[in-house]
Order: sequence, then C-alpha cells, then structure tokens
Amino acid sequence: MLHTDHVGSYSFDPGVLPGNIEHFTGVAQVPIGVAGPLLVDGEHAQGEFYVPLATAEGTLVASYNRGMKLLHAAGGVKTTVLDDRMQRAPSFLFPSAREARDFGRWLREHFEEIKAAAEATTRSGRLQDIEQYSAGRILYTRFNYTTGDAAGQNLTGKATQAACQWIAAHHDGIDQWFLESNFATDKKSSQVNMLRTRGKRVVAEATIPDALFKSVMNSSTELMYRARQVSNLGGFMSGVNNNGAHSANGITAMFIATGQDVANVAESSAAFVYAERHDNGDYYYSVTIPSLIVATYGGGTGLPTQRECLELLGCYGAGKVLKLAEIVAATVLCGELSLGSAIVAEEWVEAHDAYGRNRP
Amino acid sequence: MLHTDHVGSYSFDPGVLPGNIEHFTGVAQVPIGVAGPLLVDGEHAQGEFYVPLATAEGTLVASYNRGMKLLHAAGGVKTTVLDDRMQRAPSFLFPSAREARDFGRWLREHFEEIKAAAEATTRSGRLQDIEQYSAGRILYTRFNYTTGDAAGQNLTGKATQAACQWIAAHHDGIDQWFLESNFATDKKSSQVNMLRTRGKRVVAEATIPDALFKSVMNSSTELMYRARQVSNLGGFMSGVNNNGAHSANGITAMFIATGQDVANVAESSAAFVYAERHDNGDYYYSVTIPSLIVATYGGGTGLPTQRECLELLGCYGAGKVLKLAEIVAATVLCGELSLGSAIVAEEWVEAHDAYGRNRP
Amino acid sequence: MLHTDHVGSYSFDPGVLPGNIEHFTGVAQVPIGVAGPLLVDGEHAQGEFYVPLATAEGTLVASYNRGMKLLHAAGGVKTTVLDDRMQRAPSFLFPSAREARDFGRWLREHFEEIKAAAEATTRSGRLQDIEQYSAGRILYTRFNYTTGDAAGQNLTGKATQAACQWIAAHHDGIDQWFLESNFATDKKSSQVNMLRTRGKRVVAEATIPDALFKSVMNSSTELMYRARQVSNLGGFMSGVNNNGAHSANGITAMFIATGQDVANVAESSAAFVYAERHDNGDYYYSVTIPSLIVATYGGGTGLPTQRECLELLGCYGAGKVLKLAEIVAATVLCGELSLGSAIVAEEWVEAHDAYGRNRP
Amino acid sequence: MLHTDHVGSYSFDPGVLPGNIEHFTGVAQVPIGVAGPLLVDGEHAQGEFYVPLATAEGTLVASYNRGMKLLHAAGGVKTTVLDDRMQRAPSFLFPSAREARDFGRWLREHFEEIKAAAEATTRSGRLQDIEQYSAGRILYTRFNYTTGDAAGQNLTGKATQAACQWIAAHHDGIDQWFLESNFATDKKSSQVNMLRTRGKRVVAEATIPDALFKSVMNSSTELMYRARQVSNLGGFMSGVNNNGAHSANGITAMFIATGQDVANVAESSAAFVYAERHDNGDYYYSVTIPSLIVATYGGGTGLPTQRECLELLGCYGAGKVLKLAEIVAATVLCGELSLGSAIVAEEWVEAHDAYGRNRP
Repeated sequence: MLHTDHVGSYSFDPGVLPGNIEHFTGVAQVPIGVAGPLLVDGEHAQGEFYVPLATAEGTLVASYNRGMKLLHAAGGVKTTVLDDRMQRAPSFLFPSAREARDFGRWLREHFEEIKAAAEATTRSGRLQDIEQYSAGRILYTRFNYTTGDAAGQNLTGKATQAACQWIAAHHDGIDQWFLESNFATDKKSSQVNMLRTRGKRVVAEATIPDALFKSVMNSSTELMYRARQVSNLGGFMSGVNNNGAHSANGITAMFIATGQDVANVAESSAAFVYAERHDNGDYYYSVTIPSLIVATYGGGTGLPTQRECLELLGCYGAGKVLKLAEIVAATVLCGELSLGSAIVAEEWVEAHDAYGRNRP
Repeated sequence: MLHTDHVGSYSFDPGVLPGNIEHFTGVAQVPIGVAGPLLVDGEHAQGEFYVPLATAEGTLVASYNRGMKLLHAAGGVKTTVLDDRMQRAPSFLFPSAREARDFGRWLREHFEEIKAAAEATTRSGRLQDIEQYSAGRILYTRFNYTTGDAAGQNLTGKATQAACQWIAAHHDGIDQWFLESNFATDKKSSQVNMLRTRGKRVVAEATIPDALFKSVMNSSTELMYRARQVSNLGGFMSGVNNNGAHSANGITAMFIATGQDVANVAESSAAFVYAERHDNGDYYYSVTIPSLIVATYGGGTGLPTQRECLELLGCYGAGKVLKLAEIVAATVLCGELSLGSAIVAEEWVEAHDAYGRNRP
Repeated sequence: MLHTDHVGSYSFDPGVLPGNIEHFTGVAQVPIGVAGPLLVDGEHAQGEFYVPLATAEGTLVASYNRGMKLLHAAGGVKTTVLDDRMQRAPSFLFPSAREARDFGRWLREHFEEIKAAAEATTRSGRLQDIEQYSAGRILYTRFNYTTGDAAGQNLTGKATQAACQWIAAHHDGIDQWFLESNFATDKKSSQVNMLRTRGKRVVAEATIPDALFKSVMNSSTELMYRARQVSNLGGFMSGVNNNGAHSANGITAMFIATGQDVANVAESSAAFVYAERHDNGDYYYSVTIPSLIVATYGGGTGLPTQRECLELLGCYGAGKVLKLAEIVAATVLCGELSLGSAIVAEEWVEAHDAYGRNRP
Repeated sequence: MLHTDHVGSYSFDPGVLPGNIEHFTGVAQVPIGVAGPLLVDGEHAQGEFYVPLATAEGTLVASYNRGMKLLHAAGGVKTTVLDDRMQRAPSFLFPSAREARDFGRWLREHFEEIKAAAEATTRSGRLQDIEQYSAGRILYTRFNYTTGDAAGQNLTGKATQAACQWIAAHHDGIDQWFLESNFATDKKSSQVNMLRTRGKRVVAEATIPDALFKSVMNSSTELMYRARQVSNLGGFMSGVNNNGAHSANGITAMFIATGQDVANVAESSAAFVYAERHDNGDYYYSVTIPSLIVATYGGGTGLPTQRECLELLGCYGAGKVLKLAEIVAATVLCGELSLGSAIVAEEWVEAHDAYGRNRP
C-alpha cells in the first residue's frame, strides 16, 4: 500500500487534473531552489530573472547560481532562437523503392492539400514542410509544424494522422504506413534531431574576461580552454550527444519546476558547445540546444505550482514560449561555465562535500 | 516575485533538506498516478507491483497500465541485471603519445595501490577496473566502481579525485589531468556508455501470444513485427540512441516519484530493443537499458514523498537497488508494447484525445 | 630506390596522365577477375553484365559470382536511383548567433544570384539548393549540385568558392568563411551524408525463394533472417555505419577497376539493409547505398585499363553514370547474400581455405 | 567483351596469383607517384622515406609532397603505435538474458581452453582477450588477436570458428551462434572499432612553428587553429567518423600501391585529430588512426608491383608491419596539414586547377 502521509498532501483541487494524469493518488513534492539574478540579453527575454530549479541534488542550485554571478558580472547572456519546429514522422511502405521515390514526388506536388488536411485538426499547428528520407521500399518523412505556445507533440500527432489518412485516400499503391518509425525520435536523442531541430533550436553565448574567471571561479580561461579541447576530443571519441558539461541538470530542474514534459530531457539534453579564447585572454563561449522542447501552454504548465514558477519567470500564458526557451538556454550556459570551472579548479569534489550528500 | 500559495505548501520539515537543495523556496507538486499490477519475474523483484508514476502528461499512466495488463496475462516480465558499474573518467595529458601509452602500462601495474587510494575515501564504493582509451597525447580512462545502493556519482568523484592525486604524486611526467573530459558522459547519452554500461545494465523480456495482442491491444504480432523492422531501420538511419518507443516516459515518471536524479534521464533513456516473431505467431520482445542510474539510498530517495513511493515498491533502504532496477525495466517493457500497439492499431491519437489535452 | 621491374611496366603512353598524377613513376598492377553474369532490372542498366573486380583478396570474386548466380536464378536485381547530389559545405562565422541566423535568411533570398555565380564556373554543375545547419555563431551550409557524369568534387569546389566570393562581396558582416568544415565530409563517413545523400543514393532489391537459398547457398531464409536480426542489433550497438555485410569489398574492387576515386570508399561503404521474410519463406532483401560516388567522366575513368573496364559494362562516356551506379548497387546486393549465407552455413572459413591465403 | 589491350598487359607470371583472385583476366594499371622525403621519428620507422601513392586523382601526390616538405622543415613526424589487435566477433543466443549473462562468466573461466582451441589453427595468431557486450538474450563478443605481419582477418576467422566449435561442444544451452554479427565491423566504420581498436592504433604528431606555416603554406597557425575549431564542431554535428581532413586519400593510395586490402579503407579512414596552438604561435597537431589495417605478409603484399613498393619503404618481409603503420600515419599527418592549409589559404581550388582535371 502507498503510505500517503506526504504523497497525499497537496494544495490544489484534483479537479484541475483531468488531462494530466490517470489513477491519481497524490503528488511528488520536489524541492525548489531559486537561482539568480540571471541577466539575459535576448530577443524575447530581457533583463534579470530568478530561476526556479526543482531538484534533490545538492550543489546544483549553488552551482548554477555561481555561474549566474559570473555571467552577470560579464554583462549577461545573449540568447537567440534559431529555429522552431515540432514533428511527427510517418513512414510509408511500397512494393519497391521505385514507387517510394515516385511517392516522394507526389507528396511535394500535393503539399497544399496535405497541409489543409493536417491543419483542419488544430487551431495552433501550422505545417511548414515535409522532409523525406528514403531507404529500401520505405519513405520516411518528417512533418514539421510550428505549434504556438504548446510543445505540440499531441497536436502534431493528430494533424499528421489526418494528413496520412488523406494521403492514403488519394494515393494508390501505399502498402502500409505507420505514424511513427523512429524518425522524429520523440523522447529519444538522435542525430537527425540535432541536425534538423526538434522544438526550439536556441543559442546562449557570452564573452567573459579572464580576470573574472580568476576572481569569481578560481580558474582561468587558459585552463578552461585546454579542458575544452580535451573534452571535445573525449566526446567525439566516446560518441556523446553533447560535448558540453551537464546541460541536463539545469534543463531537468527547470522542466520539473515549470511543468514541462520532463521525459523530453532525453532529447533536450543534447547540446553543441563552441568556444574560442582570444589573444587578450577573453573567452567566447556558446552553447546551442538543438532540441529544446518547451511550452507555456498545455501539458503540466497550468498546474498550480508549475504555473507559479512560470509566473516567476514572466512566462505564463500566450506568446511566452520563446522567452522561456531563451531563459532555459541562458541558465544552461551559466551552469556549463560553473561546472567546467569547478573541474579545472579541482573544486568539484569539495563543492559536493560542502553542499551535497557526499557521505556514503 | 514567486507566488508561493502552492509552491510554499509542503508537508514536511525543511530541516530534512540540507544536502538536497540550496536557496530552498518550496516544492513542485507533480501528480502521481499508480499503474499495476505489474507482474515481475526477476532475480531481485518477484511478484506483483504497483508502480507510482509522477507526470503531468495525460495518457501516460493509462498506457503503461494497459501494457501491464497485457504482460500480466502473458505471465509477467522476466528481468535480469547484466552489469553494474558507475564511473568517473579522468584524462591525463603527456608530452607525446609515447608517454601516454607507457603511462597506460604503469596504471595497470599499480592498480592495487590506486584502488587503495580511491577506496580510502568511501565506505561503499569499490574500484573494479580502469578502462583506457587513447588518442594523441592524451589517455582517457574510465574508473569503474560498484557503489552499493547509491547511484554513486558523488562517491566515485571523490574516490577518483583521490586516486588521481595519488597517481600525480607517484608518476612523473603528467603534464595535466582533468577529473572529467566527456568519457563517462554524466547526464549525457553516449555510445561508450551504451556499450560499456553506466549504472545498471538491465534487461526485461517476455514472450506474448498473438491472441493476447489481438484481444487486449487490437493489434497483432504480425503488424507489430513489421512496424519493428521499419522502426529499426528508421532509428539506424536517424542516428537515434534508442530503437524502442518511449522508455524515457516511464523512467522519468518513476524517477520523479522515487527521488532519483531525474537529469540522468539523459543517459538512462538509451535502450536496445530486440524482438522475434515465432512461426506460431508468438512475439518475443526484449528491451535492454544499458545506462540505468538508480538508487535507493542518498540523493532524493529519503525525501518524504519519494520515500513513500519507494516503500510502495518495497524498495526503500539497504540492498534494494537491483530490485528497483528490475521494476523500472519491467515497467519500460510494458510501455513499449502499449505505445507500439497504439501506433499500429492507429489508436494513439484517439487515446490522447480521450485522456490527454489534445485540444490546442 | 624503387625497383621498377614491374612498377615500370605499363602499356600506355604516360602522356595521357597529366591531370591524374604528379611525380609519376609507374603503375600498381592490381589483378582483375570478372564475375557474372549479373542480371539487372534497372531504369538505366538492363540485362546481363560481366563485372570487373580488381582485388588481391582471394575468395572475393568467387563470392560475388556465387551471389550473382543466386540472384540470376531469382530473376535478377531491381535497382533504383533515389537521389543525386554532390556538395561543398562552406561555413560562415559572424559576431553572434543572431547575425548567423539572419544571414541564413539572406542566403535564401539571394539564391538565384548565388546560383548564377556558382554556375558561371562550370559546364555541367547545377546548384540545386543550399542546406543550412547552425550552431553558436556559425552557419554551416551544404551547396548541393548535380554534376552530370563526373563525380564532381572538383567542380563543386570551384563553383562553391566562386559563390562564396560573391556572397562575401555582397553581404556585410561575415567575420570569416571556410570552404569546408566537416559538413560535406568528403572521404569520410557521416550521418549527414547517410541522411541527405552524397553522390548517388541507390537501392538494389530482390525477393528470393527459400528453395533457392537451400539449393544454391546451403542456407535457408529462416536462418538468414535470424542472423539479420542479430546483426541489426549488433550494428546498432556497435555504432556501425552499415548494417549490412561487406559492401566495401565489391565497391572497392569495382572502383579500382573502373577508375573511380577509390578513397571515396570511406563514405561510399555506408549502407542500409532492410529485409523481410514472408510467410511462404520468400526473402525480400534490399540494400541502400546513400553516398555512392561514381563517375564515367573525369578523374581516372579515361585511363586505359579503367576505360576498358567501363566499356565492358557499357558505361564509358556521356550519360552513363546512373547506369554504373545501378550496376554497383546490384553487385553489392549479390555479395551481401553470398557472404551472409557463408556465415550462417558456416562455410565462410572453408571458402577462404579453398580460395584464399588462409595459411599464416 | 572485355577489350584487353591494356588490361591484358601485365608483367608477371599469373602463376603467382592463386590465393589472390578468381576468374583472372588481367590487371588494373593504377598510376603511382612518389612523394618525399618524408622524415619519420618512429619507434619502428626512422629517417627519410619515399612514399609510393597509387591514384588517378590529380593534386593528391603534390599535396602530400608539400606537407612532407613542411614537416621535414619542422623536424619530422613522431609516430607511436598504441595498440594492435585484430578480431572476429561471434554472437551467442540463449533462451533468455539470464543464460547469456551466465555464459559470459563461463567464457572468462574457460579462457585458456578457448585460447588453446583457437591457436591450434594458426602459426602467428595469438588470442589476447574476449570482450563481451550484451543485449536481450544475446551475448556479442570480440575475440582480439595479435596476428604478426598479416592483417589477420582470415586467420582470426579460422581460429575463432574453431574456438566457437569448442565452446559449442563444451557449453550446454547455446541456442545458436554466428561467427559475425556486426561487432567487429570488418570493412565498415564503427564507434566500437574507433574506441577499442581494429588493426593498429597509431598516432602521428608534430609541433610546427608559425613561421613555417607562413613561408611554406601561405597560411598561419592562427588561421589553421580557428579552422580546426570550426571543423571540430562541424564534424561533431554532422556525425562524421573523422574530424580531420582527408586521411582516406593517403591511406587509399598507399594501400593500392603496397598490396593492402583496399576495402579496409572503410574502417581505416576513421581518425581523431587533436591540435593545440601555443602562446608563441607554435602548432601542435596530432592524428590518431584507431583502425589501421595493414600487412607486410599475405594478401596482395607479395604481388610484383606491390612488393616493389613495400621494398621502396623497407617494409617487405617479416617484422615490418609496425614500421609500415608508422609510415602510413606520418604520411597522413602531412596530408592533413597540406589540405588544411590549402583551404584556409583559399588555394585549394587553384591547386586543383593547376594539377587536376578541374575542367568539366
């Protein structure tokens, strides 16, 4: 039996839940710490933010906070959303490769009708294009949508199913089709999503003087840059999906706090780091998150604690999703430089001794 | 300002928190639904379990529950832990490749002393071996430990730092070393972890008659197997880290509920699916999770709601971590077959319309 | 000193060589065996072909020959060219991600002018489109061309350099650009080329009755299919770029014989295998080569022995490159089924004892 | 019909060929150019070498030659062989994961008997260890051998088959086994081979003054290093198996000239580049080839022109294979810096205009 002394203690009316959970029993209470001020120079997020991080891992909030201090002193984090697309990826099977190829041409010719069929099912989803990838007798596609302030996995599923039904009714000779076949890789990390974007593709970047690294972080840009080179090679050889440090930590903590679909950490944790050290010792550092899946509408965003956290960021409600994406990316950058510094300064273990449960 | 009407409502004494969070402000309340009974035939988990899933994604609990019903009818899920190792991965730089190679030999010769230096820092960590990977003038290593019931990232960090300090004191000619350089890929998915294990490597497998697929899932093993072939190719071409369906969903929901380090979803979501369809129509299906990072001690496992959820599974306290690993794997398998069936039966969208927030 | 008793023995006038080699000293004589008849049902190749294979690896010609016999009995190999594009991939650096993103928009708006600048340098190259991939302050592009009967690496290099010079002259604010930055991955295997095609994307496929496998190959489609499942998983876990058997063998031998740029084996050896076993025991098998780089004009294709081999295939001269691509793919398929059968029938070692130098 | 005016012109007695080819018809004559002197500071290769390169690609020999000039002026290329292992990779299937795991333990316990069974079939092969990788009900293994001066694919095949037969006779309960299942990835590139070595793992490295880059290459180490950073990120994002420039060019040309199994370019073309720019402008550059498969015995190495080329390098006969590996790696390094310089100096296109067939 589930002891519900604590699980059963929640502060809201369960009537808000339909659509969020089945077999409801109670809640997980995940501690929230607030880090900040985070200084952001974005196109959608501007100014100082206090970032709610839900985690039980000691040191995490302190580490992000330290990074935010560094970046604040350096003039803030510049953020840019490069792309925005959510997809469903149906596959279509034919008698042979030849019909699969010809179907690809047909798809391009009937794009407008397919788009109409898809969009008839949704208020906010807009079909942008259909990518094609072929092998054997199969054509894999990616139906790319913009989805407003929703993450959009459900609405793209519904729209793409309608599109496939229209296609199957109008194109003879499809042997079989499946709504998903590992080409949108929902809840999984993939090279195709890292290349072609899933959710928001967002960059955070900054240039930090060497003196700040020395005074705030007990490290130096020379040491940081050497460690970066070694990590780049290590990651290339190990086959990692992220040549940075630990973006998943900040992303997960923000996702839990703000009601995102936390399982998307699987793909949203992928990242590309690119850094340069200038002759004057300045350190240019950027992190690109190619598959950041966030929402300010739908899913868990409207639940009580989650909504409060979105409100803290000024991200609750319509038209806020790109702002949220920028704040997440800026937060990630702060955490990258903080952990990176701790490793090269050999302070990582000491920090966990001080803050964490380094006692087993 | 953070409105804390709900975030500030928690049922426990914040005095339990040191070691878990800094700048504590309140809690995220994440809804928990319970799925089950899940029938497990493991070496550590035996019998029926009710599985707490913390999520705000409608349909998720219902979907896992449906899969558990199918597998219960099929006689349960067999689970096996194949391997168990947590690592830190320091890199060592030398003047040239030649000294790096010779250092590799020295490392093997001094393993016992290094092990002693590492283990002096920890009660439960045991250094098993040191893997070596070389390129240029760098030797990358993986220090592999068993870590008892803790996930072990902190204790392996502390032990490996001590080992590195011993090494640096006893081996001349190391130019530089870093405690991590993207070869243990904490909080990141990587081929090396999928090949060589991080945390628990655990398999769940079952053989399900075709008749059950038809009666419980409205699908068939013929259709499931065809879809599997297409998904295997799709995933190979897309460069996915998981040829299955959505293991991250179940893993994340269990991680939040039971106080795991949820950011580990980044690596724990990797999976290998292997299936066969027999001549009589039976479907053998297995899922292998090569980097499942779980704990029943340390981190968030002792927090109030998290502990209650571990107790529901009979997994709170000493000696329970392999049992928890098996239950997670069995849960994942149920979710794989449920979502897979929904896709081939074209019921996925309908399910989300019924249970989820498919309304934008 | 180079003993040139044999290296110095060549049958042609070295005056044909300018453009092919510097510091010419003589020739490597690589043995050619002919396999066939290969029965092809392509759109460009139709009928029986005798395939010249240049190799010193015993068993190779015999193995391909055996596969050709099987496929001949099964009615031949169906071949389809799915795509055709050769690229150069310049990168462009900007002060920040924001200008990089805006430059991407500018590129799309000025496509026609860029195309004109590129095509002014070439008779046969046609710029089809420019793909964009962004990270940090960098925009990576892929300039995709059709290149007629040439492989096209040189002409696309020249055309793209001209395009970049036009771009640099007309767009303010580019910090720096490089003609290549690992995004066309010439002479290297990459996921992006496997996804997006480099050279020809070509499929060979066939359906073979179980009885033929038993009579010609001493194996069975049941055994072959089981081995395929195990190989698919093995390849997914090992991170291979080709889930087939050994396409590089046939491709390399044809490349040497027919004057292709043999270093392209690095990327042309990637392949996707997709197979199905029908209820009647028939085996559908397809192999897709996503980066097959071939030419019937330019490079080594006009050298004397190389030209003779192209003529043997009816592939010398204008308008023949898709025919050659189809013959290569059909040859590969025959080799896949031959080696696959040898492994499952446990005849692989015996064959190498009989034909090869299995004696060290 | 094959016109054999040229193909039929060869300088040797076909009686040397059995073991190398079936259905012999004649030879491909591939032009050889010689580059050098290449200055090598290896453990097995010492001093100046003239390197035979068989290719029909204009510019290639000139480009490598230019790189050799740069490195000669810089004091030569330091080379180190890090590892040496050739493998076959049988897979074993069991009723469930549990028996597969237990079989893994049995394998370790019976290593000496398995080694004896394997080595009974070969004079020069020595089984070093057996790696294990598990998923579902399958255990994948890698049998690692040293193979003397032979590449060893055939002898390891024969030895491993004998080992498997011994295993199958002594271990009850193996459902099925296959000699290969995509875990040694012969003739294919894979992460497992890049991590764990196939053939020789060899490093070439050098430190080059900035002044030399300026005088010999018209570039600078500042520009080279910037381009390297951009290429590292490009390659990481594109999913390339080689973050260098074009190692396949030199490797292929040497493989054809010296009688190697050229199809191994598929895996031998993988490479890791690691570079550093020092404060004084010096450029440290290293390239690691993790899967270099070379032989000085067996296969095509004894054919007449091939033997002459090996003799030119002082690599024909017993005990020479590591020397050859070092010369290949040193050659590759020269080519990397030459092409890299040509790209950053915007001379790449001009060089192909001057030397190559840049005329379509």
